[in-house]
Amino acid sequence: MNKQVDSKFIVIEGLEGAGKSSAISLVRDFIEKHTGVVPICTREPGGTPLAERIRDLVKIADDTDPLCDEAECLLFYAARAQLVANVIKPALSRGEWVLGDRHNLSSLAYQGGGRGLMPLVESVSRATLGDFKPDLTLYLDIDPTLGLTRAANRGALDRIEVEEIQFFERARQTFLSYAQQDESIKVIDAGQSMAEVHKDILALLQEQDW
Amino acid sequence: MNKQVDSKFIVIEGLEGAGKSSAISLVRDFIEKHTGVVPICTREPGGTPLAERIRDLVKIADDTDPLCDEAECLLFYAARAQLVANVIKPALSRGEWVLGDRHNLSSLAYQGGGRGLMPLVESVSRATLGDFKPDLTLYLDIDPTLGLTRAANRGALDRIEVEEIQFFERARQTFLSYAQQDESIKVIDAGQSMAEVHKDILALLQEQDW
Ligand SMILES: Nc1ncnc2c1ncn2[C@@H]1O[C@H](COP(=O)(O)OP(=O)(O)O)[C@@H](O)[C@H]1O
Ligand SMILES: Nc1ncnc2c1ncn2[C@@H]1O[C@H](COP(=O)(O)OP(=O)(O)O)[C@@H](O)[C@H]1O
Ligand SMILES: [Mg+2]
Ligand SMILES: [Mg+2]
Repeated sequence: MNKQVDSKFIVIEGLEGAGKSSAISLVRDFIEKHTGVVPICTREPGGTPLAERIRDLVKIADDTDPLCDEAECLLFYAARAQLVANVIKPALSRGEWVLGDRHNLSSLAYQGGGRGLMPLVESVSRATLGDFKPDLTLYLDIDPTLGLTRAANRGALDRIEVEEIQFFERARQTFLSYAQQDESIKVIDAGQSMAEVHKDILALLQEQDW
Repeated sequence: MNKQVDSKFIVIEGLEGAGKSSAISLVRDFIEKHTGVVPICTREPGGTPLAERIRDLVKIADDTDPLCDEAECLLFYAARAQLVANVIKPALSRGEWVLGDRHNLSSLAYQGGGRGLMPLVESVSRATLGDFKPDLTLYLDIDPTLGLTRAANRGALDRIEVEEIQFFERARQTFLSYAQQDESIKVIDAGQSMAEVHKDILALLQEQDW
């Protein structure tokens, strides 16, 4: 990995309505205090002009040309490859910190677990990202029903947010099983009040040896 | 493969300016005479509303956000997955013939051979297409310099058509090496006059046991 010793790539993951966007502000403020510099904030899919155009393609539902599962998966990885090559890696090699609203774990959970495409997802993940991965992932774990209720209060649901609850249950189990195998993924109980969630996030950030 | 015994998927492949578009008309007419029905004609990337939007993304050059090789490859396969799922396979299972202007072999040649991404291309190809492949591929073999001269006479060149000549030389060698290993890929000398090329194509079509 082409990054300086002290720059870090931190990612917030979780189902819809888990509280990722709220957590981003908190972690951004923490990083700014810790390093004196505001991190580069990314969202996935998106974060470069081309990746944002790909984001539009995966969000829209077209009944005459429904997005097939394989194409969905490949579009997410095309956007991610573009973001990693043109934004994340360059920032890390300049010594900047990067804070991501979703990254590769979302594809493993949604396309791999949710859609049942794990062989495709794992091979594309390996072939496009190689060893590149976040230094720390904060996975906000939430019951999908609760998360979707929160997300619905926020506004209209997109093509993925209207999936059946079993889809999100499978995604949740996949998030949890990766967290169990990977020390760099921390599980936070996002069913708590926002104050408690934020307290847990800050505690986790403070115990890192940065 | 979910297709009827007598429907066929025929693909025309070759570098820019090899004469694919002209060959398509000839083969379409042959199929219409042979079956009594006009085939479904596809082009890649493209051929569905979403795949055509992906085509736009790979054709444009954006200096501020250059398309990385991995994203290019994944976009081609996203478009192809969509076209195969929503157009080609449904047509074949209805018993219709499909005639393609480019298909998977172009990705093996351009992204695999040209860009040097063969491991990614081969794994994505296997994971998205499985055993699905054309019944017959007519590969129009041309010297890249001659092909690009013909293509330039046709109009402005796109992001890929302006690649260096070595890129197309590598793609050409990859086309030829797949043709050598796969009986269903026929090589046609596209450096000949159009009349001779068309004579060779018709001879190949007539010797099929359809
Ligand atoms: N712990 C929490 N308790 C209650 N509501 C929350 C909590 N975290 C977030 N919310 C609210 O739920 C909605 C979705 O949160 P958001 O941060 O947008 O989630 P995400 O970005 O993960 O989809 C927002 O309206 C947010 O204010
Ligand atoms: N065998 C040939 N000899 C000379 N010119 C040709 C021949 N085949 C095609 N052309 C011309 O070359 C140009 C490119 O051909 P085209 O069919 O558009 O190639 P492709 O679709 O493979 O890019 C067109 O102007 C076409 O008329
Ligand atoms: Mg959010
Ligand atoms: Mg053409």
